[in-house]
Parts: sequence; structure tokens; C-alpha cells
Amino acid sequence: MTTTIQVELPPHPYPIHIGPGLLATDGPLAELVAGARVLVISNDTVAALHGERLRAALARAGHVGECVLPDGERWKNLETMARIFDAAIDHGCARDCWFVAFGGGVIGDMAGFAAATWQRGVRLIQVPTTLLAQVDSSVGGKTGVNHPRGKNMIGAFHQPRAVIADTDTLSTLDDRQFRAGLAEVIKYGLIRDADFFAWLEAELDAVLAREPAALAHIIEQSCRNKAAVVAEDERETGVRALLNLGHTFGHAIETATGYDTWLHGEAIAAGMCMAARLSARIGWLAQGECDRVESLFQRVPLPTRPPAIGGTRMRELMQSDKKTLGGRMRLILLEGVGRAVITDACPAGELDAELAAADPPSRATHDHA
Amino acid sequence: MTTTIQVELPPHPYPIHIGPGLLATDGPLAELVAGARVLVISNDTVAALHGERLRAALARAGHVGECVLPDGERWKNLETMARIFDAAIDHGCARDCWFVAFGGGVIGDMAGFAAATWQRGVRLIQVPTTLLAQVDSSVGGKTGVNHPRGKNMIGAFHQPRAVIADTDTLSTLDDRQFRAGLAEVIKYGLIRDADFFAWLEAELDAVLAREPAALAHIIEQSCRNKAAVVAEDERETGVRALLNLGHTFGHAIETATGYDTWLHGEAIAAGMCMAARLSARIGWLAQGECDRVESLFQRVPLPTRPPAIGGTRMRELMQSDKKTLGGRMRLILLEGVGRAVITDACPAGELDAELAAADPPSRATHDHA
Repeated sequence: MTTTIQVELPPHPYPIHIGPGLLATDGPLAELVAGARVLVISNDTVAALHGERLRAALARAGHVGECVLPDGERWKNLETMARIFDAAIDHGCARDCWFVAFGGGVIGDMAGFAAATWQRGVRLIQVPTTLLAQVDSSVGGKTGVNHPRGKNMIGAFHQPRAVIADTDTLSTLDDRQFRAGLAEVIKYGLIRDADFFAWLEAELDAVLAREPAALAHIIEQSCRNKAAVVAEDERETGVRALLNLGHTFGHAIETATGYDTWLHGEAIAAGMCMAARLSARIGWLAQGECDRVESLFQRVPLPTRPPAIGGTRMRELMQSDKKTLGGRMRLILLEGVGRAVITDACPAGELDAELAAADPPSRATHDHA
Repeated sequence: MTTTIQVELPPHPYPIHIGPGLLATDGPLAELVAGARVLVISNDTVAALHGERLRAALARAGHVGECVLPDGERWKNLETMARIFDAAIDHGCARDCWFVAFGGGVIGDMAGFAAATWQRGVRLIQVPTTLLAQVDSSVGGKTGVNHPRGKNMIGAFHQPRAVIADTDTLSTLDDRQFRAGLAEVIKYGLIRDADFFAWLEAELDAVLAREPAALAHIIEQSCRNKAAVVAEDERETGVRALLNLGHTFGHAIETATGYDTWLHGEAIAAGMCMAARLSARIGWLAQGECDRVESLFQRVPLPTRPPAIGGTRMRELMQSDKKTLGGRMRLILLEGVGRAVITDACPAGELDAELAAADPPSRATHDHA
């Protein structure tokens, strides 16, 4: 039942293990940390639901410390990082210790950044417990925290030594979080895998019913796509930027509404639809393809339009996004389902028109009040 | 008058420029940043003394932002880092900007860490203005901040694109800071350059008088030694650890006394003398060589003994040093002047005896009250 996908990155290629029961006492996590000093970074939600099983899987470690943080994107900041470092010193974590990120994307980003910077770098294992983290954020080594004025402004590249995606942990995931994770799954179809997008159109009901075979397929196919892109371009000097489809729009939504009002997956779903409509507007994407994109997100359902931010404010926030700050706007647009491109050739007027079309707020199809 | 030493590290080998007048409007700094967006990180002391010249050297940059921090090791922490990040966002610093560290070791460590983590890494130029920073901390890519309970616990490796050591900036350095810098200079002699140590014994008066030729020689010789070690072992998996001679003792002194009571150079001077005496105590270093070491530090003068911490507390702090935390004590000891070794073979009883011999405080030869 377990699938392993290798991320081919020197100097330490690493496996992504996907399947049920991986947190067993004889599973891959137990093997890796046998005899070692371990610091687990988690949040109160995940620790309450799955902490017991994790502790059992770590029974053979030499020492296990725990750092349990509050749950939510609004805690992903430098102040919370200080709590991880306090725990690291409390538990005598030296250069040869392991950090274990046990939670969703926020925990993975912060624990990863802590591992990148504690003693100038210690080993990290990602144990993602949400769909979004299993299909996207736990793989590829991007770590970091938010600045009050921008998403993921502060961080580091720090690859894990292993990703252990135990699909049993998804059983406790609420529907909103599950749907948010699907946004990143659909993203892989949109940017580089038209067959997978078509499969999602055909099998969405099975996915939404969380049928084990369907779940396994979307996680594996997402990780395969992510691993291939990351192996080709670890530091995002080229093709890796495609993974940001919808993210410049989405980060603007997250920053404007305050972290945690819109989930990351919800914000980028709206962002990907905006990118699709803009691509259609400038004639790069056929209208029928654009409709397929919006239709799939609507079926999940995920938002296809931004909240009432206003086109001008949205434009400002996009301009100060990490990928654009102080320079020209670079966007990821679509030439077809499965064919994304990086471009700075989109006319500014067309972008403004798309942003204006998203107003007024009464057109929003998703309400987070 | 300018010397350039290359640090041979892939993927970006970089030059260390050493000489007077390097902050000229047609100097290497002016060349590097022409047309670019620049954030200068400095402290109030250096900004007041040399800020005008730096601004002139940056006149051809596209945009120059400044972040002026309070002066002192006690500010080298995560809270101060947040101020650098605020400035980076205020000045629209994107991935293609340059950070310039303009100050001593504390500024270099913090600006370097900010450059390592802002947007997951931007380019950095080190412009060191103290002897200690010019001979040691600006070269080699170690960056970071202190934890309240330990030196340099949080950080990253981030190599600069250039080090520009304008020796004119040393003219305003007070004597205590200058002597502290000499501790790191003497260190290179002790660990791997017996000829240089002998030269320092012979020419110390010229050095203390800051004769230009003597100053140029000690900076060049120190940078040559540092560049060679760093090129061999960037991430300190081996020989680079020799550069930590006296540092486990020294960090314990700094942490115990509160940052800024003892300067870093003063603490490691006492630490190197402790390492020498311990080496003599276990028969690895001839007593005559040990006397040469202590004698040179005394002539500067720099402390040769720790303050009144107490052997037990000192041992505890050494045990929680970054290089030792949670594991066995690894020390850098001397087999001769110019011949340092990394060892975990020093009997614990002998270390304790050396720490006890440093008590009572009345034996201290240097008073910082």
C-alpha cells in the first residue's frame, strides 16, 4: 500500500513515503530517528489528534522533545519561531539532532525554517498531516514565515531528509481544509499534467468521498509532479516558478484579508481562476478551457473570485509580493490546461481590467464572513 | 596599495579587497551596486563616523535604503532582525537587491543572516569597519544571532559576493576594540601559521602603533589563512573547527557575563590562553610554548584568564555551547604554536582542573568593572 517517490536533489536525495500506517512503530520514521535526539514541532490541534501515535513511532529515539504551537497561519511569524528555538535549547538540541515537522503547511514551513537556522542547520523530517501539506508544502525545501506586510518574506531553502505522508492522518481533516488542499492538487493538472486534470474532472466525486484509492492517486500524482519540478530547479531560477500559478493573486488575498480568514488553498483557487480568466482575456487560453478550469473549482467547491478587496488595492499588494517586489510584474498564465507559462508580457491594462472585473464584491461566489 | 585575496568557493568565488580608500566613488563597492537596489545595514556609531563616505560610494546605485541599528552585541537577536526586515519591505527590496553590511562583527552577522533569509536569500556585500570584522567575521559566510542562553545559536551559512575592507575605517576604532580584534589575528598564528606568530612577537609594537604597513600585513595574512580554511571546509565538517580555538571557553564567558561586558575578542583571548594551559597540563604543549602564548596576549594587553564565573558554571556553559550541546565536549587544543588539533580525548578531570585553577577571581589579570 505504500508508495515511495524519490526527490533527486544532491547532496541528499530523499524519499517521499505515501500510505496508511506509516507512523507505525516499525515504520520509516521509527527507523530514521532510532537512538537520536529529536525535537517534534507540532500544533495543538494535531498534537491532540495524533500525538499519541507519533510518540509511539518515536519510542526508539534517544530523546524526544516537543514544541506545541498554536494552530493557524496568523502564528507563522518570527515571534513564534522564538518559541521553537527556546524548545531546542531546553532539549539540548545540538547539530546532530533531528527536527520533525508534524502538522500542516504552517508547521512545515516554520519547523523547516527552524531546522534551516538552528545551529546553522540541522536535519529535518517532514510528517505532513493535511492534504495541502502532503501534496505540496512538505516537498521541495521552501521554508519560512510571514512578515506582517507580506507572505513568506523571510525564509530559507532547506530540504528534508524524508517526507512521511501517513494518509491515516487525513481522516480527521475537516472538509474545508480538505477542499483547500485540493486547490494545490488541481494546480499540478493545470500547470503540467493535462491527463491528471482530466482524471480529476472524471473522478472528483470519488476524491470528495475520500475513497482510499482516489486519495492515494492524487497524493502520488501531485508528489510526482512536484518532485520532478523541484529536482529540475531547486532554487526557482526557472521552471519552479510555474508552481506559483495563482499565488501572486492568492498571496494578495491572504495579506489583504488577514491570515486565516481565507485558507491558503482557497486564496490560490481564486487566484488560479483569475489567472485563467486573464489568460483568456488576452487570447492565450481558449474560452472553453477557461470554463473547464472554473467549473472544476466550482464543483469542489472552492472560490473562483477574490473577496471585496478592490482592484487598486489588489494591484498594490500584488506589486509588493515577494516575486515582484520593486520590479516588474511577472505572472504565471495558461496557454492551455496542462500548459502554464511564466511571462512579463501581459499588458498592464488587461491585468487591471481583470482585477476590476472581480469587483464589485457582490460577484464573489464564496463567503467567509 | 590594495590587495585582493580570492575565496575559492563555488558557486560564487569572491574577492576580499584590502586597502585604504576602497570606499571611493570609483571603488569596488561603487562598481558592484551600480544601478541596483541596495539596503545598507549599519549601526549608529559607524553611520555617524563613516556614513557620509559610504553614501558617496553608493551614489551610482539605483536606490539606497538604510537601516541603522543600535551598537552592541546585546542587540544581536531575533528582535533586532525584525527591524532589518521592516526596512527591507519599506525599501521594496526584492530578490535582485543587494544587502550591504557596514560595521563590525555584530552588524556583519545580522546583516548576513538577514541576507540569507530575506526572500530566501539575496546578495550580500560585507564592508567591515573593525579590525575583528576585517580579519575574521566578514569572511567565510557564518551569519546569525544569539539566543539569550547561547551565542550564535540561530543562523545560516551565506557567503558574501565581496568583502571590502577599507583600512581607513580603522582610524576611528578605539583602542579596546582594536586590541579585541588582535585576538583573532593572533589566533591564525596559533592554529596554523607559526611564522606569522613569530612575526607578531617581533613586530607587535608596530602593530599597536597601527603603522600602515603592519596593519596591512596582519589583515592580509589573517584573510589569507581564513580564506584557505574556509575554501577547504565551508560547512565546518572538519578543519574549519580549528578556527574555534578558544571559542568554547570564550562563548561561555560572553554568555555568563552578559553580552557586551566582555568583548568577543577579549573573551576568546582568555579562552585561547585556557586552551594553551590545558594543552600544557595534559602534556601536549611544551610549557615554554604555553608561556609564549600567554606572554603575547599580555603584551597587547588582552585578558589571559576568565572573570569570576566559577569552574562549575563555566563547565555547564561550555557543555551547552553550540559545538557541544547535548553531546560530548570537543575541544580545540594546541600541540605547538601554529599546530592546533580538534580532540575529544581530553580527560574531563584535566579540563575541570584547568577551570578550577582559573578560580578564584582574584587571579584574573584583566578587570572590566
